[in-house]
Amino acid sequence: MSTNTSMNPAELADVRRHLDVAAIGSELYARVERLYPICRSITGHGVRETLRLIGQEIDLAITEVPSGTQVFDWAVPPEWNIRDGYVKNSSGEKIVDFAASNLHVLNYSIPVHRKITLAELQPHLFSIPDRPDWVPYKTSYYSPNWGFCLTDRQRQALKDDEYEVCIDASLEDGHLTFAECVLPGQSDSEVFFSCHICHPSLCNDNLSGISVAVTLAKLLARTARKYSYRFLFIPGTIGAITWLALNEETTRKITHGLVLSGLGDPGRITYKRSRRANAEIDRVVAHVLQTSGDPHDIQDFSPYGYDERQYCSPGFNLPVGVLSRTPHGRYPEYHTSADNLDLVRPASLTDSLLKALSIVEVVEGNGVYTNRNPKGEPQLGRRGLYSTMGGHGDSRSREEALLWVLNLSDGSHTLLDIAERSQLPFDVIRQVASTLQQHELLSETS
Amino acid sequence: MSTNTSMNPAELADVRRHLDVAAIGSELYARVERLYPICRSITGHGVRETLRLIGQEIDLAITEVPSGTQVFDWAVPPEWNIRDGYVKNSSGEKIVDFAASNLHVLNYSIPVHRKITLAELQPHLFSIPDRPDWVPYKTSYYSPNWGFCLTDRQRQALKDDEYEVCIDASLEDGHLTFAECVLPGQSDSEVFFSCHICHPSLCNDNLSGISVAVTLAKLLARTARKYSYRFLFIPGTIGAITWLALNEETTRKITHGLVLSGLGDPGRITYKRSRRANAEIDRVVAHVLQTSGDPHDIQDFSPYGYDERQYCSPGFNLPVGVLSRTPHGRYPEYHTSADNLDLVRPASLTDSLLKALSIVEVVEGNGVYTNRNPKGEPQLGRRGLYSTMGGHGDSRSREEALLWVLNLSDGSHTLLDIAERSQLPFDVIRQVASTLQQHELLSETS
Amino acid sequence: MSTNTSMNPAELADVRRHLDVAAIGSELYARVERLYPICRSITGHGVRETLRLIGQEIDLAITEVPSGTQVFDWAVPPEWNIRDGYVKNSSGEKIVDFAASNLHVLNYSIPVHRKITLAELQPHLFSIPDRPDWVPYKTSYYSPNWGFCLTDRQRQALKDDEYEVCIDASLEDGHLTFAECVLPGQSDSEVFFSCHICHPSLCNDNLSGISVAVTLAKLLARTARKYSYRFLFIPGTIGAITWLALNEETTRKITHGLVLSGLGDPGRITYKRSRRANAEIDRVVAHVLQTSGDPHDIQDFSPYGYDERQYCSPGFNLPVGVLSRTPHGRYPEYHTSADNLDLVRPASLTDSLLKALSIVEVVEGNGVYTNRNPKGEPQLGRRGLYSTMGGHGDSRSREEALLWVLNLSDGSHTLLDIAERSQLPFDVIRQVASTLQQHELLSETS
Repeated sequence: MSTNTSMNPAELADVRRHLDVAAIGSELYARVERLYPICRSITGHGVRETLRLIGQEIDLAITEVPSGTQVFDWAVPPEWNIRDGYVKNSSGEKIVDFAASNLHVLNYSIPVHRKITLAELQPHLFSIPDRPDWVPYKTSYYSPNWGFCLTDRQRQALKDDEYEVCIDASLEDGHLTFAECVLPGQSDSEVFFSCHICHPSLCNDNLSGISVAVTLAKLLARTARKYSYRFLFIPGTIGAITWLALNEETTRKITHGLVLSGLGDPGRITYKRSRRANAEIDRVVAHVLQTSGDPHDIQDFSPYGYDERQYCSPGFNLPVGVLSRTPHGRYPEYHTSADNLDLVRPASLTDSLLKALSIVEVVEGNGVYTNRNPKGEPQLGRRGLYSTMGGHGDSRSREEALLWVLNLSDGSHTLLDIAERSQLPFDVIRQVASTLQQHELLSETS
Repeated sequence: MSTNTSMNPAELADVRRHLDVAAIGSELYARVERLYPICRSITGHGVRETLRLIGQEIDLAITEVPSGTQVFDWAVPPEWNIRDGYVKNSSGEKIVDFAASNLHVLNYSIPVHRKITLAELQPHLFSIPDRPDWVPYKTSYYSPNWGFCLTDRQRQALKDDEYEVCIDASLEDGHLTFAECVLPGQSDSEVFFSCHICHPSLCNDNLSGISVAVTLAKLLARTARKYSYRFLFIPGTIGAITWLALNEETTRKITHGLVLSGLGDPGRITYKRSRRANAEIDRVVAHVLQTSGDPHDIQDFSPYGYDERQYCSPGFNLPVGVLSRTPHGRYPEYHTSADNLDLVRPASLTDSLLKALSIVEVVEGNGVYTNRNPKGEPQLGRRGLYSTMGGHGDSRSREEALLWVLNLSDGSHTLLDIAERSQLPFDVIRQVASTLQQHELLSETS
Repeated sequence: MSTNTSMNPAELADVRRHLDVAAIGSELYARVERLYPICRSITGHGVRETLRLIGQEIDLAITEVPSGTQVFDWAVPPEWNIRDGYVKNSSGEKIVDFAASNLHVLNYSIPVHRKITLAELQPHLFSIPDRPDWVPYKTSYYSPNWGFCLTDRQRQALKDDEYEVCIDASLEDGHLTFAECVLPGQSDSEVFFSCHICHPSLCNDNLSGISVAVTLAKLLARTARKYSYRFLFIPGTIGAITWLALNEETTRKITHGLVLSGLGDPGRITYKRSRRANAEIDRVVAHVLQTSGDPHDIQDFSPYGYDERQYCSPGFNLPVGVLSRTPHGRYPEYHTSADNLDLVRPASLTDSLLKALSIVEVVEGNGVYTNRNPKGEPQLGRRGLYSTMGGHGDSRSREEALLWVLNLSDGSHTLLDIAERSQLPFDVIRQVASTLQQHELLSETS
């Protein structure tokens, strides 16, 4: 690796340090606002419209996979598109209306239009008794059904009446749509980010991840890159499975990966390890969070959650963890209408982005070096790298980093190993390694 | 392994679930009562009578090993039989009497009959000053001696008098007697249980283990078995060494083992690990105790205690731990007349048996499986194994078990590994694996 | 290894047990007093005089390495010798005087003699504002400079005046001087002790380590030794690097090593692990400190401190830790005139010596043994090694040690492994192993 290669992380660090944090927060939040009204599902025009808007900001390659395509144990389902949906009472009033919120229709609902009694309607209604003012988000992808989601207050007010139910939707052969943004680097090895794009008007659960991914891609597009980067925008589960089925070769190039999701709520940043538990990405994220000084949680892998379920299935076992704030299902607003523009915060989105950037910096900057003067210490003072005045009370922290890098650079320790063992921040270790390289005291191990 | 093989553990679980707990408690306790009066030692008729009674309940193969037989560093000792023993004062009163309790005679005492002074008698008397109403249990197997054990209150009341001491016992060439109950299974690999049968009227220390072993053997005799089972009833130390010397080939078949002892007192259930520390039996017992919800202790191996000393000697190093309640020597009644029918409880004996059954269930049910659809998750919903209604608030615990089994069944994790990592009870994991096997989503790794 | 070899550690233990603790404390302290006035530096007559005095007590081989000799990345510097140094005010009063304390002159100062203003003088003065009555110890080995160290109170009293500064020193081609005391043992493998000898009138930092090393060498010279011992007395950093450069072959023989430093202050004994972290020396010292019952600290390796920096550089990675009391830099007197004869205590020096002796005992006594009767326990009672009277309340601690040694002596566990696992003190384990060896129940694994 040439000398200017080792400058990349510094450039990336520069990008991070010169970010206009307020402007970034506005950008991240405005993107969530823009995407919020769209009615997405696992297939259909909502996904396409979402990708069209994202594609205005970053280069996207769109893939359309025909319904019926076999993808491992699954088949790509029909394409769902919806125009309208409502429940009218006998007075003709729309008491539940898709136009007011796309959450009101059971996502992926089959079409229906008929008049029925309240008793017949009840099994098709979904509400949350504990949260009487929130509309739940419900789906029925693989069991044909229709239904409406409403607040429990609305539901309790329903009278014995004749109701007109209408869902003007279609479920027909079409496509499953996903998009990729690939940023080539010096190496074919890929850092992989995935976020799901199948949830309708939910902010933290899906839009926050999308928004952070888009800004991250924009920033990385501007920097030199050791690794290649792949950002995947896909419907959850079936989308991830479809992508894996079509890209088995590509998966072999993935050396680090993160599912990005739930990154806008005010909770603490949370990392869920990959199935491998101690992959480099797991150690990188743990180091970044631990040295951040911010509250954080690190959780072991479990096979439920987001698309890490698929990426970490035993046939792939990819080194992919999950970066989120409050984990899915652990905040009351999860999968309800309360996961709205009030739940996500510019500051949280920005902090999540900065953490992701720091993670990328460590991934980019990590490497194995060899001390070229391994017998005893080199004479650092002669090179101006060390205080020449010994004795009482010298400040030593940068010198300690120098000594750690020299001591452990025996060809078997990465800079991350050194950062972990010395309990010094990675970027201090990384800077010191660059300095030692410039003084020809350290060489990168090929 | 055929499909109906995998049904065995379920049958065993059924046996356990349909146990009449009260009846089992009565059976376990009544057996202790029945065996309590017999004067056992490391050899002799007391052992034979004990085995005769056990043999009325389970099939036993009795082995008689002649005195003088060399067994590793030891020789089988002479056979000891006792008819009577007493100390009479000069008024002809029996102040210590074997007929009242067989603990009164130093176990394995040489015969004696003579008149002596109190001063001459004293070195042959054993009492417990701290527990003035208890008679100690003492032995002298390998150093010829005679003596009497009595309460300290009795001892303090002794006057300067001439005493007649009589121990009508014989120490002659004969045999060391032990018994085995072997229940063949589909595999030659053996699960091994050992309990000592050399203590006279002591309930917790030896009779409780014997009683639990007998009921366990009776229950296992009625179930299909993947493993073979061997129950060994032997005198402590010399018996175990003798059995090992005569059965070196057999020891190679032992894959799991437990010494059963001290299982009737009201203390918490305790497991002492095998010398290997992390043998499957060690992990099985730890999992059963940890998921039982009951108070329990798990202790590291040490080379003192019961016959694990011999089974875990470095020349054998068998995977044998110890299942007890309060460990030997840790309760005041240990090796005294207070280890009697009041110390052991039907409820404790029953709980010990149920724990042993749960342990056997895990041993029988453990195995390695392979996910037949390892790339991404299989579509569980289509097979009725997963909620088809996504969204808010689904209960997930059984589904989590399904996902754990699928995720970790890569041919390198046992079901016990999966139970440990998921922190779900083994039987939930096991049931879910059976279900997945029925749906051809999982196959047993041969 | 012959039987009488295994007697050596016992002899060493005898030496330790028969030490006259008060006399040793006096000897250790008196040696510090004797060496205290000498003005040492990394080269020059102060080092030679120090080694001359040590050489009156133990056999030393002195090495003189010419200035300019290339040693890895360094060159041996010129020899520094000083005769006088002072600052005089315009009244001719010596307000700073080398004769009062050799700390007053910046160590390794270039010669100077001139008259200057206070403003010109100030950059050449060193004091400690926080400790106004202490003189700092300062050096400038590799950046030519001159200067004076004084109390901050002296400094604040300086008036605007013309000052005569004089340092009557020479920096000329000469030699770097170090000394070794080698005590050959049965094996070429070496136990290595290193202490630095380059600090002038500082007691804890350098003289305490020297004094403990000298007494330790005197004691070891009187005992039979399995290992060879090397005591190295060298200037810090450049001395250690010089020795390593001249003795690469010798370093391959080092199996255990300790830097001895800071052993006289009243703080708790502290061990800093070698870079290997789990070398035998690391485990030996941890065991000795943990079973001592005394307060102690055990710290992970870091690449700053004393000459472990050099010995543990990646090109050598020797198994060398650091034995000290309060670590360097952690006590306020460090590198000041307060590191004087009041800071070090006979009791602390003695305790440090006894700990070092205990460490050597474990190193000497450790070994791997094989149970010659590995199947079941041997019959210890027959050999008088075990209580023949079984039953209630026997004391068992020595018997437990016997059983641990027999159980784990399978050719793969050292006695130290057994001590660690049994949590019994090494010397109990060692004694019991000797006893078992005498009874031919144990043989040393060659």
